[in-house]
Amino acid sequence: MTVLVIGATGEIGRAAVAALSEHYDVLGVGRSTTPAVDFTRPETLDALFADHAPFEAVVVLGGEIPFAPLSELTRENFESGLASKFLGQVETVQRGTAHVADGGSFTLVSGILTDHPVAGSAAASAINSAVNGFVVGAAPELPRGIRINAVSPTVVTESVQYHGAFRGFAQVPAAEVAQWVLRSVAGEQTGQIFRAGW
Amino acid sequence: MTVLVIGATGEIGRAAVAALSEHYDVLGVGRSTTPAVDFTRPETLDALFADHAPFEAVVVLGGEIPFAPLSELTRENFESGLASKFLGQVETVQRGTAHVADGGSFTLVSGILTDHPVAGSAAASAINSAVNGFVVGAAPELPRGIRINAVSPTVVTESVQYHGAFRGFAQVPAAEVAQWVLRSVAGEQTGQIFRAGW
Ligand SMILES: NC(=O)c1ccc[n+]([C@@H]2O[C@H](COP(=O)([O-])OP(=O)(O)OC[C@H]3O[C@@H](n4cnc5c(N)ncnc54)[C@H](OP(=O)(O)O)[C@@H]3O)[C@@H](O)[C@H]2O)c1
Ligand SMILES: NC(=O)c1ccc[n+]([C@@H]2O[C@H](COP(=O)([O-])OP(=O)(O)OC[C@H]3O[C@@H](n4cnc5c(N)ncnc54)[C@H](OP(=O)(O)O)[C@@H]3O)[C@@H](O)[C@H]2O)c1
Repeated sequence: MTVLVIGATGEIGRAAVAALSEHYDVLGVGRSTTPAVDFTRPETLDALFADHAPFEAVVVLGGEIPFAPLSELTRENFESGLASKFLGQVETVQRGTAHVADGGSFTLVSGILTDHPVAGSAAASAINSAVNGFVVGAAPELPRGIRINAVSPTVVTESVQYHGAFRGFAQVPAAEVAQWVLRSVAGEQTGQIFRAGW
Repeated sequence: MTVLVIGATGEIGRAAVAALSEHYDVLGVGRSTTPAVDFTRPETLDALFADHAPFEAVVVLGGEIPFAPLSELTRENFESGLASKFLGQVETVQRGTAHVADGGSFTLVSGILTDHPVAGSAAASAINSAVNGFVVGAAPELPRGIRINAVSPTVVTESVQYHGAFRGFAQVPAAEVAQWVLRSVAGEQTGQIFRAGW
């Protein structure tokens, strides 16, 4: 059975598709692929699941969060970040559960900012934390042995555009994040926040 | 100078007002007080701050979060819970910062569900986690030495209506939660999640 990767074209997503493809059939999607999905428009999730389910696992490796000084963060910044990285992942789980095999899994993505903020990360730290909290709260309630975990990377080695904001942070190669994704998919654990590189 | 307590009429809020009143003047408000404030309607925060600031500290001890089985939690449940307990507290900080004295503080409220879920808490665990993440991310960016912490209680002894959902959990008397609030207001720490009773 196939593993669905939403965010497959991203820095982490490409590495995850490569790692998963050694063991599973993979369907990698994003807003700009065919088929396409935009998890901020939940009807596109329904269409994807209707056409391509069932899946052995669903992995999400995308979601946009705002960065700005606290004094400049608007309510709209919080709401749009929640709508993408938090509610987009929640909708993927809520709409996807019926289309995941018994004993299958969801793997979501959060990030190190939950515990180690950087300048401008007040909304990002909050939204990533919401993802982790959802994983903790949802894990005991998924039906049919379906599991859910989050992978929480430190700054990715290949994501050089972020290195200036993360000076002094340990970096993690995308391929190493991908191994945590594989472990979440292939393993037995649920309700876990897997720290990648920190 | 005065400490503002939003949620002053609640189970925890009443105990916090009592504890703070031994050391500070306290203005306790909620939706049903005079003056009134509803932090889901940010203009009411602006009116409160315009009429009663400056404050030595602002404490929030309210916010409504949905409980329902994961399979029944709707997007509207997530959005309304975020609008109340998360964005309500964020708006209090964002609109209140200019009205808090140099070296003053914010104290927000989250809860044990971030780490220890109960049946029906997937949204609650997520939303409480968002509050904690905001505290971690906002703390380094508040101006003029203003601090921010969250108090995260286990189930409160007096909140007997919740005891059935929290069987086996340690309970914490509201007066003990109130001491953590006092410590947050009177102390020097920032960016902390104070676990009350767990
Ligand atoms: N890179 C890092 O250093 C790092 C560290 C910690 C955490 N993270 C988190 O990890 C996630 C992925 O990071 P990344 O650097 O790999 O991101 P990226 O290179 O920007 O890739 C994001 C991926 O997600 C897809 N995507 C974005 N919004 C989507 C939507 N609404 N619906 C469906 N697909 C969507 C993108 O494809 P389309 O644009 O085609 O939709 C792309 O495939 C992000 O949430 C990020 O916050 C990254
Ligand atoms: N009790 C527990 O066991 C427990 C444990 C962990 C965490 N918590 C959290 O601690 C907080 C307080 O709990 P509690 O049991 O003390 O609650 P409570 O007894 O229901 O009191 C809530 C207080 O907040 C006020 N409030 C609610 N919504 C408001 C809004 N939109 N704007 C302004 N004020 C508002 C209420 O007054 P009005 O109705 O007049 O507005 C009341 O004063 C909650 O967020 C809860 O999730 C509680």
